[in-house]
Amino acid sequence: MTINTTTDTVKTPLAEWDLVITDANIATMDQRIAAPYGALEQAAIAIKDGMIAWLGKQSELPDFDVLATPTLSAKGQWLTPGLIDCHTHLVFAGSRAEEFEQRLQGVSYEQIAEQGGGIASTVRATRAADHESLFVTAKERLNTLFAEGVTTVEIKSGYGLDCENEIKLLEVARLLAEHHPVDIKTTFLGAHALPPEYLGRSDEYIDLVCGPMMAEVAAKNLADAVDAFCENVGFTRAQTQRVFAAAKQHNLPVKLHAEQLSNQQGATLVAEFNGLSADHIEYLDEAGIQAMAQAGTIAVLLPGAFYFLRETKLPPIALLQQYQVPIAIATDFNPGTSPLCSLHLMMNMACTLFRMTPEQALAGVTCNAAKALGLHDRGVLKVGARADIAHWQITHPAQLSYQFGVNKLLNLWILGRLH
Amino acid sequence: MTINTTTDTVKTPLAEWDLVITDANIATMDQRIAAPYGALEQAAIAIKDGMIAWLGKQSELPDFDVLATPTLSAKGQWLTPGLIDCHTHLVFAGSRAEEFEQRLQGVSYEQIAEQGGGIASTVRATRAADHESLFVTAKERLNTLFAEGVTTVEIKSGYGLDCENEIKLLEVARLLAEHHPVDIKTTFLGAHALPPEYLGRSDEYIDLVCGPMMAEVAAKNLADAVDAFCENVGFTRAQTQRVFAAAKQHNLPVKLHAEQLSNQQGATLVAEFNGLSADHIEYLDEAGIQAMAQAGTIAVLLPGAFYFLRETKLPPIALLQQYQVPIAIATDFNPGTSPLCSLHLMMNMACTLFRMTPEQALAGVTCNAAKALGLHDRGVLKVGARADIAHWQITHPAQLSYQFGVNKLLNLWILGRLH
Ligand SMILES: [Zn+2]
Ligand SMILES: [Zn+2]
Repeated sequence: MTINTTTDTVKTPLAEWDLVITDANIATMDQRIAAPYGALEQAAIAIKDGMIAWLGKQSELPDFDVLATPTLSAKGQWLTPGLIDCHTHLVFAGSRAEEFEQRLQGVSYEQIAEQGGGIASTVRATRAADHESLFVTAKERLNTLFAEGVTTVEIKSGYGLDCENEIKLLEVARLLAEHHPVDIKTTFLGAHALPPEYLGRSDEYIDLVCGPMMAEVAAKNLADAVDAFCENVGFTRAQTQRVFAAAKQHNLPVKLHAEQLSNQQGATLVAEFNGLSADHIEYLDEAGIQAMAQAGTIAVLLPGAFYFLRETKLPPIALLQQYQVPIAIATDFNPGTSPLCSLHLMMNMACTLFRMTPEQALAGVTCNAAKALGLHDRGVLKVGARADIAHWQITHPAQLSYQFGVNKLLNLWILGRLH
Repeated sequence: MTINTTTDTVKTPLAEWDLVITDANIATMDQRIAAPYGALEQAAIAIKDGMIAWLGKQSELPDFDVLATPTLSAKGQWLTPGLIDCHTHLVFAGSRAEEFEQRLQGVSYEQIAEQGGGIASTVRATRAADHESLFVTAKERLNTLFAEGVTTVEIKSGYGLDCENEIKLLEVARLLAEHHPVDIKTTFLGAHALPPEYLGRSDEYIDLVCGPMMAEVAAKNLADAVDAFCENVGFTRAQTQRVFAAAKQHNLPVKLHAEQLSNQQGATLVAEFNGLSADHIEYLDEAGIQAMAQAGTIAVLLPGAFYFLRETKLPPIALLQQYQVPIAIATDFNPGTSPLCSLHLMMNMACTLFRMTPEQALAGVTCNAAKALGLHDRGVLKVGARADIAHWQITHPAQLSYQFGVNKLLNLWILGRLH
């Protein structure tokens, strides 16, 4: 057998790719493919310049230069889009473990708050922390998600609650993006909680958030979106509206922590602003769902917070489905209400606690999570999308939601690069 | 500086150890130490021949040959006993993910059973699997626990349900023990479910379990204990009694899947046989608790199954505490009712779902888990115990139960050997 050198091979008619993955079952999550999970069996996928250049039945794979192109067999195992965690509070300092212990020993929330506990303790520790220490702990958490096949993570600020410290948190998130293969989207959540120094002056704090704070965030291009906590224990609908109006001035899309503990009509507000997503939404009503459906606002469910707070009121999943509002699933990883750093566990909880199907759970952390971040280049495996691909040692994609703990990730590509 | 050679050093008065760990905070879990977690701060621990030779305040550390003895600083972080998962069904073949999906799509349990689903499908797949493939999948699961700091794991048979296949499962468990640093204890659970070929003849199946099956298990020394599933959907109290009587004949200690779905008075039965533990026990009553307390039978709670089956009836924790019945926590890892391979998640669930404290959760996977296996040489860090020690990057032991997902394990010793 003679091996042709590249110079005397006629390459012109051959597809030129950087990588071809063969012998795969692919859960494309592409709704144009009628099979569950948009599945293609005995399929192949070709990558060029970090993007998916070809995808289809292996029998239809075009000719390509087999000598010049690295080829990897998926050995009949499954590929899915890289997972997307579209709602996290990943950057913070301190631990609330001792508070957790006190509560379980019978100390009341009020007593803990009087001791300076609760979110105030996280704010205090986060303000005292420098960029480096925040970076180190956030990177550990990011690595944990990465090891589970997560390729895009949203990170919110919201534990600084003053100009300097909100900026610091967003800078740490941008620094993570620079130094980690996982793609990071940042969200400015200045209106997360009232800082102690503004006690009794929440409108003044909202002035700060909407004014100098957001101006600096926008000027430094530190945020991809703006979020708020609209709740009886958070900010009012009117205050949230002011935050959203300011975001609009800065051309920043909005999303909202809405209807978690009560119905504040936050979902209709976020829909009025054509917002990306309404998150939590256990207390969402039909009017809110209608508004979201019309505005194209995504529902983000956070089963970790539901579990950790032992909520009993389920989000209105059937009604969301009836109105065809896409449902995303995220960790809401944070030290107070969801200290659970695992998107796979959220998939299991979405099925176990919310009775979603494994296919809906997988859509929740791929195609619908991408939509919740306003991203159209990922979350689905199709030609033209980013080559963010997870390769799993499973025989059926339902296994990703069913069994928890044993890591089934074999390979992970981000923009076509193997990690 | 002159370094003395061993020959001219006077060693006689110095302690001779294999390893000294200094600058540690130690959650000994020793009840003789009054502090929460039996904690000793600024402490040290010395290991000799795989056992703990000395443990105490660092200021009281005896002189030892610092040149000849490896010393490791714990850098002010925490040591705990290696964790113990005292109830698992780790060895099985097949996946029930597609069934899980069907149920969430609205297919009834009855329909799934008619299709040969449920435990029957696991039994079918397990009978068809050879030693090697069972070993490979079980080892993956064991590695997952090991990575969480687990140093002792109990493994039950119960998916073979005939002589050849129950023996096979226990042989695989013994093989794991030979080839893995984690210490394995095996439990014969022939009376787990009625195999399909015995439909309508459960007493005859119990004859097989108590007769030839247990005889072979005992003759080959394959089991450290005997277990059964006493339930309205399992075996009756009378059948369980026969299994226990046979175990007694073979000098094997007993334990029981008891009062999970109803009160069958299984706990009083296991207490009559001075059994090691009654496991699940959501429906346990006061008489059962009294009997357990008198017999020294441990309560093993399985929050993973409680979560996965969406149970609402909580185990009688306050009453167990009132009667001073030690409470252990385990994964119950199995493909049907607890496909959750994480002892840390169980600690979080014990706190979140069962309202146990982090200290009780840690006791549940250390000292009390050891008792549930009849082991007196581990689960507590004290002189004379096995040097099974986990070293965690935490500032308070409550963090082990509170935050889930980010692996905080720094080092793990089993019998004094670092892994
Ligand atoms: Zn949140
Ligand atoms: Zn069990």
